[in-house]
Amino acid sequence: MTNAPIFERMALIGIGLIGSSLAQAARQRGLVKEIAISTRSEATLRRAEELGLGDSYSVDAAVAVEGADLVILCVPVGANEAIAKWIAPALKKGAILTDAGSTKGSVVAQVAPHVPEGVHFIPGHPIAGTEQSGPDAGFPTLFDQRWCILTPPENTDPDALEKLKAFWQGCGSDVDLMDPKHHDLVLAIVSHLPHVIAYNIVGTADDLEAVTKSEVIKYSASGFRDFTRLAASDPIMWRDVCLNNKDAILEMLARFSEDLSALQRAIRWGDGDKLFEMFTRTRSIRRSIIEAGQETDAPDFGRHSGD
Amino acid sequence: MTNAPIFERMALIGIGLIGSSLAQAARQRGLVKEIAISTRSEATLRRAEELGLGDSYSVDAAVAVEGADLVILCVPVGANEAIAKWIAPALKKGAILTDAGSTKGSVVAQVAPHVPEGVHFIPGHPIAGTEQSGPDAGFPTLFDQRWCILTPPENTDPDALEKLKAFWQGCGSDVDLMDPKHHDLVLAIVSHLPHVIAYNIVGTADDLEAVTKSEVIKYSASGFRDFTRLAASDPIMWRDVCLNNKDAILEMLARFSEDLSALQRAIRWGDGDKLFEMFTRTRSIRRSIIEAGQETDAPDFGRHSGD
Repeated sequence: MTNAPIFERMALIGIGLIGSSLAQAARQRGLVKEIAISTRSEATLRRAEELGLGDSYSVDAAVAVEGADLVILCVPVGANEAIAKWIAPALKKGAILTDAGSTKGSVVAQVAPHVPEGVHFIPGHPIAGTEQSGPDAGFPTLFDQRWCILTPPENTDPDALEKLKAFWQGCGSDVDLMDPKHHDLVLAIVSHLPHVIAYNIVGTADDLEAVTKSEVIKYSASGFRDFTRLAASDPIMWRDVCLNNKDAILEMLARFSEDLSALQRAIRWGDGDKLFEMFTRTRSIRRSIIEAGQETDAPDFGRHSGD
Repeated sequence: MTNAPIFERMALIGIGLIGSSLAQAARQRGLVKEIAISTRSEATLRRAEELGLGDSYSVDAAVAVEGADLVILCVPVGANEAIAKWIAPALKKGAILTDAGSTKGSVVAQVAPHVPEGVHFIPGHPIAGTEQSGPDAGFPTLFDQRWCILTPPENTDPDALEKLKAFWQGCGSDVDLMDPKHHDLVLAIVSHLPHVIAYNIVGTADDLEAVTKSEVIKYSASGFRDFTRLAASDPIMWRDVCLNNKDAILEMLARFSEDLSALQRAIRWGDGDKLFEMFTRTRSIRRSIIEAGQETDAPDFGRHSGD
């Protein structure tokens, strides 16, 4: 595709699944003229260079952001504050600073105080990913037909916001605007709780004495394996999410546990009507997700199509 | 394929996902000469006939099993006892009676007392399925590379067991033998708990006041949608599983909740090291499941391959 570039120089701080996918999407669709990549691991940086993801590479984030009119932090959310301090003096006046982190309240609290005047800070979160991580995991269509949530502070420059929206739309996404607090509540239920639960059930299975690990693996197609995908996600990323969206996650965990107690009680007392009712209302949500284009309608996630 | 048929007449009682897939697998691979189908719903029976799944169709299960040397109960486990009573007088001497239910202790308790002498009762459970149900959901490769667990009672006739094993192997499965009690414990962790948890989390999300259903649907690609697949499974089947494997499910729920409390505590107290440790050990299980051929290794279950 041949769009007019929206930005002259994009700096990606962090080049894992998200950074790598952004580099490829932006390059393929002509959204930026130049891509500067920075990550603190020399090995990862070298790999990004081998993959040809950018035009320049530096372990020094301040070097990467020099002259950039778009800077995207693509690191685990716990690393944002240190990077913000590091790059602040090097940010160009008029640049847009954004991120791709899964929590937004914490990013505002930890990054905003360090943003120099004249730099447009607009936090963001693409609702896209896979369970894989690292620069090799990226692919240019990751953001297609996925939502990207931006949480612009009050008094955000409208032109800067428009440019950032156009960038994400260029990557294939639809853009929603939201308050950071509401974002964190929404993501706590649609993403953080599912990951925490998936990690937990895989841990429970791993700990059993009476059922061997080999049995869990052999018979996993009966349900368990679905959870192992989320539970194979990057542990650093998810540690940071839990530490940085604590209140909303604890709230969702409390509701989940309350509901689970009710379900457990229905099982204990053999309340078939209650169980049937609980198991019936959940089908329509999946149907809606498929209709919204956010899920495949092939049975079993389409796994059998490759058989 | 042209195998010599293992059975003369197979009667399938129930023609949902499993019955329909068995009919198609057995036909395609020449495992049986004749297929008799019975289900209590006239509409479903008509649909099975339209799909050409069998050679004869009857709402009377006793008619279907007449002369059959293989009878497979493919109904929700709660229906097994009534069917056993119904068909018992019509079962042919020397016939093999088996089932495809997700619980085995309950099947032994509810069916065995009604099995006439001279009939070989060997409970079974194919570890295969999708979230869809009904005769249209079936397909002949459902059992390929999946395990089928048989729980033969002591003193089971070895020839009958060999024939039933050969049938399942003909359907593409590997066969394991197990004690019913152990089966129920294994399945409680690999299948029943995951389904109960998935139903529960989808219910929790559905009940929120502060997050709309439309938001849950839009942003579901961030994790939630994975759970909706299991939670879209047949509610009658899962009600019956919960009612018929109560003790093992309650045991697994107790362990899961205990582990979740520990995880919740780590979140509340910001124990990053503990969270990292909990989130790290789970990756290797997925790797093992993929290596065992029980899961695709494409990222995101291969959803993106169809993009």
